[in-house]
Amino acid sequence: MTTNGEGTTAVKPLKVALLGCGVVGTEVARALTTNAADFAARVGAPLELIGIAVRRLGRERDLDVDPALFTTDAEDLVTRADIVVEVIGGIEPARSLMLRAMEHGAGVVTANKALLAADGPTLYEAAARHGVDLYYEASVAGAIPLLRPIRESLAGDQIERVLGIVNGTTNYMLDKMDSTGQSFADALEQAQALGYAEADPTADVDGFDAAAKAAILASLAFHTRVSLDDVHREGISEVSSADVLAAQQQGCVIKLLSICERSRTADGAEAVSVRVHPAMLPLDHQLASVREAFNAVFVEATGAGQLMFYGPGAGGQPTASAVLGDVVAVARHRRAGGRGPGEYAYAELPVLPMADTVTRYHVRLDVADRPGVLAQVAGVFAAHDVSIETVQQRQVTGDDGVDRAVLVVTTHAATDAALSTTVEELQKLDSVDSVAGVMRVEGTDSRGA
Amino acid sequence: MTTNGEGTTAVKPLKVALLGCGVVGTEVARALTTNAADFAARVGAPLELIGIAVRRLGRERDLDVDPALFTTDAEDLVTRADIVVEVIGGIEPARSLMLRAMEHGAGVVTANKALLAADGPTLYEAAARHGVDLYYEASVAGAIPLLRPIRESLAGDQIERVLGIVNGTTNYMLDKMDSTGQSFADALEQAQALGYAEADPTADVDGFDAAAKAAILASLAFHTRVSLDDVHREGISEVSSADVLAAQQQGCVIKLLSICERSRTADGAEAVSVRVHPAMLPLDHQLASVREAFNAVFVEATGAGQLMFYGPGAGGQPTASAVLGDVVAVARHRRAGGRGPGEYAYAELPVLPMADTVTRYHVRLDVADRPGVLAQVAGVFAAHDVSIETVQQRQVTGDDGVDRAVLVVTTHAATDAALSTTVEELQKLDSVDSVAGVMRVEGTDSRGA
Repeated sequence: MTTNGEGTTAVKPLKVALLGCGVVGTEVARALTTNAADFAARVGAPLELIGIAVRRLGRERDLDVDPALFTTDAEDLVTRADIVVEVIGGIEPARSLMLRAMEHGAGVVTANKALLAADGPTLYEAAARHGVDLYYEASVAGAIPLLRPIRESLAGDQIERVLGIVNGTTNYMLDKMDSTGQSFADALEQAQALGYAEADPTADVDGFDAAAKAAILASLAFHTRVSLDDVHREGISEVSSADVLAAQQQGCVIKLLSICERSRTADGAEAVSVRVHPAMLPLDHQLASVREAFNAVFVEATGAGQLMFYGPGAGGQPTASAVLGDVVAVARHRRAGGRGPGEYAYAELPVLPMADTVTRYHVRLDVADRPGVLAQVAGVFAAHDVSIETVQQRQVTGDDGVDRAVLVVTTHAATDAALSTTVEELQKLDSVDSVAGVMRVEGTDSRGA
Repeated sequence: MTTNGEGTTAVKPLKVALLGCGVVGTEVARALTTNAADFAARVGAPLELIGIAVRRLGRERDLDVDPALFTTDAEDLVTRADIVVEVIGGIEPARSLMLRAMEHGAGVVTANKALLAADGPTLYEAAARHGVDLYYEASVAGAIPLLRPIRESLAGDQIERVLGIVNGTTNYMLDKMDSTGQSFADALEQAQALGYAEADPTADVDGFDAAAKAAILASLAFHTRVSLDDVHREGISEVSSADVLAAQQQGCVIKLLSICERSRTADGAEAVSVRVHPAMLPLDHQLASVREAFNAVFVEATGAGQLMFYGPGAGGQPTASAVLGDVVAVARHRRAGGRGPGEYAYAELPVLPMADTVTRYHVRLDVADRPGVLAQVAGVFAAHDVSIETVQQRQVTGDDGVDRAVLVVTTHAATDAALSTTVEELQKLDSVDSVAGVMRVEGTDSRGA
């Protein structure tokens, strides 16, 4: 930690208020106090932590700051700051406090993906109206610089697709299921024991967290407002050990993907598709090798080609790093008397319903082992204009001693509606005992990523 | 390409001058004219291409713009622009033109790594003096957003280490040598045939290009001015097929790495080490799987942990994407009446000489196959305080029918001076016929990356 301090001592400090002092807030407060000289040198003015709003005073904390900084009066605190850092999470009181901060002229830094995905426009509009910054790098993929590259570095390019693993908990679980053959229940238990998953794992396991991040990514990538409700969402609780094994037999691994891509409506108009679901990825795809609780995001742009960003997606220190990068940015803008680029929703592209989204399916069927079954099955696919890429047929002997067969079908790209209707129709065939597994397939098509 | 155009037609356009119309310049000009509506929406004002400075007029170009835009009078052109894009390359006239542009109040975007590494401070100081932006994302790792994340996203963190493959030509060659067993000469010929390597490949093969990029990365990462002369540089022309094979036998691959890390002087003061050299990387290291002419950079920071950025490192369109991102940034700043964060050299850390840099060696020795040789060899390492991690001994029969042995030694970390003196001393031993190969080893130590 070095600084020449030149010219910074005489400069008026910028006042920073911190809302929340959990895992991330603690690291933010620690860094602001411990590395104060560095921040002063990088901003050109000292950053002064003027208060930390908490729910209860007097709690034991692993943080060496003046106890007088703690307050339960967040409403007052935000009116006295130049920069407000919100790491409370959730919708309220986070939203009201941020709006109040902006009304009073403060720039806001937040890690609150749930709020941004649910009601981002309210915040963006407030920031624009009051001429202040609203930064939220930490809301997606923790420490990985991702939103700034999308918003600024690629501002002269056209982003075609964002494909990412942005939920560490589910990636940890799927990785364990893949590498050790664990069941979903066992993997969840282990993730909870290690603190990766919450006692109520719904937000992670059912894809809400990944969907909120997909909404934020799509909004920035396509200059279009996309909210949580626009995102098609499927979690991983239906992923079975049999699915994992079937993926391995195809040279694939199952990942929970957040996918945002430019698309077209049925009548050819520009649109976007935003979805979260588990999918098979071929092992040679770069996202396939993302292990444990790491995050990684592929970004494909017309000019830049395929880019990948990789790193820790959560944790106190990594998330604090992203928050603090934003604090420095907002502080520099205040020093320079302006604000950074805001949110640009000029494109206003429609979000395609999942039924119209083009995707590929892997379908496993338990069928009777007799001539003509494959033809019958293939006929159902053809009837719905779904083209088959590969079929594998394997003979098995059932518990009843009768020979049966397993058919594994991988389709070419088709609309999700056509694919799901096909699966429904297959279930009705006499020769089909059951549909043993359905999984989307990504990362193998002509779009490259 | 969509825009609502709202409020942008009445706004005064920002004038963009382009210096150079090669591969990158052509793509920049094409994008500015083809996607004008998008740029206007993202900037909040139209970007007007007012001229393209070229050496000769009347040349056939694959570019559909008004022929009147071309001029040979770059000196005049830069005085009429709000934003000057320099893609000529080389030291002069690029430097004089950029200085002139800044004197006249223009923001400058450049891809010129050679100039920045050779004489960056002259440009940084001019930008600060005239209160204008100087952006150069395209100078390192092509389209990969890397400088902005380092400069801005990680501004609240402390970067410990940057380890990257930033020269596509040499990565292509080393990849071919590794995957096909080609010699250096054959790999070079193939790279030239494919247009990856120049007729005079010195800048790539001898590491000048990678060293210039290392200087730029270290300057930004450590807030310290590092120039090309400060960078220890070794190219790949000495890398033999035998080295590649030896690396494979160790479960490694050879890559040309640009390495910037925080370090300590002998008396414990903070310092930085900046170097470019080929090194063995274990196959499970993420940079090991970077194939063909791709670039990838690891960044390790105290808070963020390990991040990786991956993508195309060169090419007209990817480089133009990075240039255009900078153009939008500079244009937004001009609209807002300010400039972005400048260069921060406040830390002024000394650059450690290579001799004092701590590294690890892989050494292959052809030795006599008799008792006591290993003890003799180990004694030389010990005499220079170099600790051995592993030794492998293999018996071979020479052309003369005499049994000899090959010793493969991997050391623990030691200063480069101690390691190179050790190798010199080994050469003098009677029992050592020759030092068959010496290669540094990276990515396996406790520092993690």
